[in-house]
Formats: sequence, structure tokens, C-alpha cells
Amino acid sequence: MSLKKLFEERSDIAWKANMPSVSIDCVVFGFHDSSLKVLLVRLKDQPLWSLPGGYMGKKEELKDAAARILNERTGAENIYLQQFKVFSKLNRSEDFFKDYDDTLWHKQRFLTVGFYALVNYTDVEPVIDELSDACEWVDINTLPEMMMDHREIFDKALVTLRRQLNYKPIGYSLLPEEFTMPELQKLYEIILDKKLNRGNFYRKMTGYDILDKLDEPRKGGAHKAPNLYRFNLDKYKAALKDGLKEGW
Amino acid sequence: MSLKKLFEERSDIAWKANMPSVSIDCVVFGFHDSSLKVLLVRLKDQPLWSLPGGYMGKKEELKDAAARILNERTGAENIYLQQFKVFSKLNRSEDFFKDYDDTLWHKQRFLTVGFYALVNYTDVEPVIDELSDACEWVDINTLPEMMMDHREIFDKALVTLRRQLNYKPIGYSLLPEEFTMPELQKLYEIILDKKLNRGNFYRKMTGYDILDKLDEPRKGGAHKAPNLYRFNLDKYKAALKDGLKEGW
Repeated sequence: MSLKKLFEERSDIAWKANMPSVSIDCVVFGFHDSSLKVLLVRLKDQPLWSLPGGYMGKKEELKDAAARILNERTGAENIYLQQFKVFSKLNRSEDFFKDYDDTLWHKQRFLTVGFYALVNYTDVEPVIDELSDACEWVDINTLPEMMMDHREIFDKALVTLRRQLNYKPIGYSLLPEEFTMPELQKLYEIILDKKLNRGNFYRKMTGYDILDKLDEPRKGGAHKAPNLYRFNLDKYKAALKDGLKEGW
Repeated sequence: MSLKKLFEERSDIAWKANMPSVSIDCVVFGFHDSSLKVLLVRLKDQPLWSLPGGYMGKKEELKDAAARILNERTGAENIYLQQFKVFSKLNRSEDFFKDYDDTLWHKQRFLTVGFYALVNYTDVEPVIDELSDACEWVDINTLPEMMMDHREIFDKALVTLRRQLNYKPIGYSLLPEEFTMPELQKLYEIILDKKLNRGNFYRKMTGYDILDKLDEPRKGGAHKAPNLYRFNLDKYKAALKDGLKEGW
């Protein structure tokens, strides 16, 4: 069935079930193979990609709605979610819906609340739902063209991540439980969009006293086995409460 | 006329003019006499205080609506405004409107978008509108009890201000054009909620190279006249772009 037909079929129920004016778009970040990725969807019959999103039930809180939307899309539960901005431009979706009837739910004016989500890459099984024909992880350095204002929403999410690096558990949420110092540094470099000095990074990170070094280094590989670390969640949370003190 | 009657009178027009589901609440900060103040309103016939707020026109963008609401309330133009969070709790206003008809515009479920505003205290002339019987500056350390979730909105605004101190022009927007180093330090201490060492503060602040020292010290007073400074806006903005590097 075409996307148009599917929207039309769903319009009546959407009018009854959802809060008017408010939609949700999610920028889902995952870290894998030394690169930061974002989960994108391509709706049926569309050339452009979009962020996973949806609407908010009349009796639902905003964050619960975002968690539900992401759970349907990824299978993951207890996803780290943070709202970061409302996007309210007039005619955000005018072009997209120009061939639709004015009474269509989806064609109304929506303010969209942007959430960023941090997931453990391996926990996610991207789901292609009835409205879409693709749902994939994409490296943030090779993003395809996106529909409506979704690129702007993505850009803002990344800037927010950068600014919140010192007071949200971003490393903890994106990395697997055990990781090496170079892996942690790589994540910071991608989010901050700059190279960091290895010695300084090591010194600052250990200075914060938020990591536990494991007794056993990582097995395998020809070189000297690298040390493994894991976040000490109690200490990490305590340190983030006042914010880590130094810039990068 | 009673508040109830006024709401009832305005309900029909509000249904026609505004975006459903979305309201705006503003936390307006001003700095005066070495204390940080917030602008509060007391609606007619109400014991509790509230944040100045309102609704968003169908053809209006969010920030423009917040600017309009604040202009009506303060007379000030070009106010520094920053949205910081959407508050979406169910039944936020249920108690407040329990004696009203269910069809009343104001009784519907609203998600409210919190904005903080930074104003030059002397630019503001608080306006008591038809719905309220008080509109006053209150020291943030002696806040009265507030209605609905307005205290939670205020608290979140203050935390946001604290976290954005290194990358938003907060000092510039709150201080008069010319100020002394102790005045700037006092503002930082209030926002950060901690005492700062005078020598360290001076060293860091001058190290950022964002202030111009005036040739003439402040006139009057028995003591040695203190030096006056003003933000160098070009340098300040350039430095904030990447974020000031050190914690406080």
C-alpha cells in the first residue's frame, strides 16, 4: 500500500488518540567500529531519509511517548533519552504534504520536540515498520539528504551532546560495558569534532576518578594487550552532578 | 471582574487564535543590588504566585510568541530568550481549574515550553495586566510559593543558566554595560551557588580576554574607586562559540 493511502487510513485514529500540535523526533546515536552512527528511516516511496518519530497520546507524558516510539523502532528498552529543543518553524511539513487533503492529521501544523537517545549499538535491532522501507545505522560523517527540517534537528542534537559531555553520562550510555582508553578517546574526539592529545586525555580522565581499571587486559591481537576500563557508575554520577571541571 | 469570569470570556477567542496543547512559561531573570531576581505574577483572587506565560498563535513561531508575551508584561524589546525544556506532566493544571467547565480553553491539557529570559533590570517596567493583581521582582533566595509546576520550571531554569554560563552571553545580558569585577563575580557566585576565590576569578576572567577595562574608574564613594569593565562583545561571542574552557 502507498504511503499516502497508509496516512489516510490512519488519520482518523490519530485525531482521536493524540495530543494535537505536538510531535516527537528522535536522534538515536550508537557507537560502533570507532564511528558514531545515527539511526535513520526512509519512508515508503520517498527519496529522502528521516529521523524516527511519532506522536504523543492524550494521556501520555512526553518522555514516555519518545520511549515508546523508540522501543517500537529498535526493540531496545530503558534507552537513555534527553529532550533538547522544540522546533516550531511555520510550514515545516508543507511541501511534504502538499498533495494531501487539509483534514489529514499528519498535515496539521506540528511543533516537534527533539530528543536525543544514546543506545548500546549491539542492543538495537532496527525495525522497518509498515510506513517505511528502510531503517539503518548511518555514520554521522556520511549522512544522506534528509526530509523537512530533520537535518537541522540532527545538527542541534550533536551540538547538545557536545555541550553536555561534562554533565550527562554520555560515555557510559554509548560504550559497551568494557572499553579501552583509545576507544573512549575516539568517542570524545568524534563528539567534540577535534583531535585530543593522548597523554592529556589519559591524565584528565584518570584524574576524574570515574573509571575502574579491570585486572585483565583485552585478549587477542598481535600487539601488547590494551588495558580495559569500565565506568564506576556511582563515582561517575556524583562527578557529573556538579559537572566535570575541565574543558577538552 | 473575577478571574473565572475573565477566563470564561476569553475562552472562545483563545480556541480560535492559538495552537492547541502548547503553552509558554517564562523565567525572567534580572540582576540588581547584588542579587538575582525573577519576575513573578499573582493572578487575581489567587494566593500563589506564577511565572508570566501565555499561548502561541496559530501562525506564530515559539520564540516570537515568548517575546510577545514578555513584551506585553515588561515593555522591554529584544529580550535575550532561550527555551530550555518542555514540561508535560499529566494533570499539571487539574487542581487549578477544577471548578471550571471542561470546555474552557485554559482547562485543556497543555505542555508548557519553559523559556528563560535575561533582561537588564532597569529596562523593565513590570505590567499588571487585567488578569493579575501583582507583577513584581522577587529575590531568587526568597521565592514565595508558586502555583502548578512553576517552582519546578524555575528550578530547571536556574540549573540551565548554571550549565550554560560558559557558552551563552549570560553576564552580558544581565549586567549593565559597565560593571566592576566584584559585581561580575557576585553574579557568577549567585548563578553557581558557591563562593569563588577572588584572585582566581580575576585571573580566569582576564585570561579569557573578553573584557575591556575602561580608562576611568567608577566615581564616588569613600574607598579607592574600583575599576570598571565592559564586555568586548566580539571577543565574548567568539570565545563562547567553543565554550569557555575552565570550570569555576
